[in-house]
Amino acid sequence: MADKVNIAVDAMGGDNAPAEVVKGCIEALEQAPGLKISLVGIEDKVRAELSKYTYDPDRIEVIHASEVIEMAEPPVMAVRTKKDSSLVRCMYLVKEGKCDALVTAGSTGAFLVGGQIIVGRIKGVERPPLAPFIPTLNGRCLLLDCGANVDARPSQLVQFAKIGSAYVRKACGIDNPRVGIVNIGAEEEKGNALVKETFPLLKATPEINFIGSVEARDIPYGAADVVVCEAFVGNVILKMYEGVGTALMKSMKEAFMSSTKSKIGALLAKPALKKTLKQYDTNRYGGAPLLGCNGLLVKTHGSSKSAPICNSILQCKLFADQNINNDIKEMFSISSDI
Amino acid sequence: MADKVNIAVDAMGGDNAPAEVVKGCIEALEQAPGLKISLVGIEDKVRAELSKYTYDPDRIEVIHASEVIEMAEPPVMAVRTKKDSSLVRCMYLVKEGKCDALVTAGSTGAFLVGGQIIVGRIKGVERPPLAPFIPTLNGRCLLLDCGANVDARPSQLVQFAKIGSAYVRKACGIDNPRVGIVNIGAEEEKGNALVKETFPLLKATPEINFIGSVEARDIPYGAADVVVCEAFVGNVILKMYEGVGTALMKSMKEAFMSSTKSKIGALLAKPALKKTLKQYDTNRYGGAPLLGCNGLLVKTHGSSKSAPICNSILQCKLFADQNINNDIKEMFSISSDI
Repeated sequence: MADKVNIAVDAMGGDNAPAEVVKGCIEALEQAPGLKISLVGIEDKVRAELSKYTYDPDRIEVIHASEVIEMAEPPVMAVRTKKDSSLVRCMYLVKEGKCDALVTAGSTGAFLVGGQIIVGRIKGVERPPLAPFIPTLNGRCLLLDCGANVDARPSQLVQFAKIGSAYVRKACGIDNPRVGIVNIGAEEEKGNALVKETFPLLKATPEINFIGSVEARDIPYGAADVVVCEAFVGNVILKMYEGVGTALMKSMKEAFMSSTKSKIGALLAKPALKKTLKQYDTNRYGGAPLLGCNGLLVKTHGSSKSAPICNSILQCKLFADQNINNDIKEMFSISSDI
Repeated sequence: MADKVNIAVDAMGGDNAPAEVVKGCIEALEQAPGLKISLVGIEDKVRAELSKYTYDPDRIEVIHASEVIEMAEPPVMAVRTKKDSSLVRCMYLVKEGKCDALVTAGSTGAFLVGGQIIVGRIKGVERPPLAPFIPTLNGRCLLLDCGANVDARPSQLVQFAKIGSAYVRKACGIDNPRVGIVNIGAEEEKGNALVKETFPLLKATPEINFIGSVEARDIPYGAADVVVCEAFVGNVILKMYEGVGTALMKSMKEAFMSSTKSKIGALLAKPALKKTLKQYDTNRYGGAPLLGCNGLLVKTHGSSKSAPICNSILQCKLFADQNINNDIKEMFSISSDI
């Protein structure tokens, strides 16, 4: 890696682009000195947003891209035909080694397709998993796969466990991360066909610290550092996390507002509650990386404001600084037989 | 159905048996006049608990069963060999028509096995699903299957939709319940192989009001009245509901206790919050019924105290009073071709 880490940012991706994306870039530059950003999008729109801020022009390069991939477009077609879209241009910047990583809040489908067909996989990696951190009572847990590969095979889940372990080791500084497989009971004989077939393979993988089955209920309590499952299940876990959390918060707010007494109570408890709820913000660790590609690709929520964009850029910086992709590559060069 | 509804209750099932089970029965008798209970278990233990209460002896019959199926026992073996266990005796009471329904907080595995091999399925039902209600922002939603059948087939998911619709129609008084399938996106072309294959079948089922895909995130917001999915996914949804809810509550309690100011705030807001949180109590609608058997079989949480036992008994009473099984039977006699 170069002295300076260079991150490609899709200025046109997401519901709040380009305003919040540009704001997030400025925030990231302020927080991380050794960082450069290639801001890719419709140049005059991007520059109009940039003009609102004071920044070191040597640290932001604006790269013009005339097209935008919309959220609803069929992904494969979009990536193939919109060669001059901001997302595809970002992908090529990473592929050609001009940037170390990319961040987008745009179409997930196009992101997944572009990652695989433009940037490409690390040799030996069958299917790159989408791997967000989810908050737990005492930290965080890496959940993979969360949506990249439906109908996964056991060998792929084993790869997810290895890739996830390499990532968590450096990103969280946990030497021997505990790897669990999502299951509907704690016993080894429980589970569907995929889990039953994968379980013994994980047990026989020396590079990981496999602790067995993890029930969904125990994930928020921090039962494992790395949790593997097929994409359909991972997506359900992530979305339930979001749905239950926000629904519960909505009800609590209504309860707080229901009487004068409870309103005063809310005011008094607010600072303490705010601090706690921040722990459960799924955006605080950045977006969801697609791990196992030749470069780091991070997808943040389509509704991202500046904070998750900024966090995702900082996440890429950490990833590049610590050369995490090298660890993943090494893992697959040693045992490419799985 | 008889004038009086007779419910078999497994007095020895669950972590708090027989004390809380017996207490729950007494509470149910107080709330529902037209109810009789057959309390099955080790007679002297059951009578010792019963002696703590005043009740009409004509409404509780104690039936001795000398054995108890433990939580960790292999279910098939347990059901086959422990013929005089409280759970197996309850199953036979339903099978022989002596009771209309049964409630147990005991082993889920033995409950599922016993339901299928002792009580038996309604003609035409391939696989009875486990179908708990989960709370939503403005009501509740029936989730099936939640753990009875791993690796389900599309035709089974269609049956779940029909059975669930019949149940919700009467249990919730919703004429035309909205049926959704759990998916990882709202579009029809999204999903894994099972969902893609099931989607058109659901669309072509005239007996149900199919509204399409439902993302896990939208379930707590009440996106559908009946939600179908394979057991592995349903179990993950149910457990995430529980896990995220309780973890969040634990953190909030700690936040409330973190300073004098927040403690006072908590005291003031407590009544309003308590009312809200009660809405999210997964036990308030009773346990999870195994639908599509010849009689209603309800499983409550192994850690159940008296309230969920009582609610489950009342749930069975409603089910029997409204003759819901007849509706399910009719649905399958009309179109047994699916």
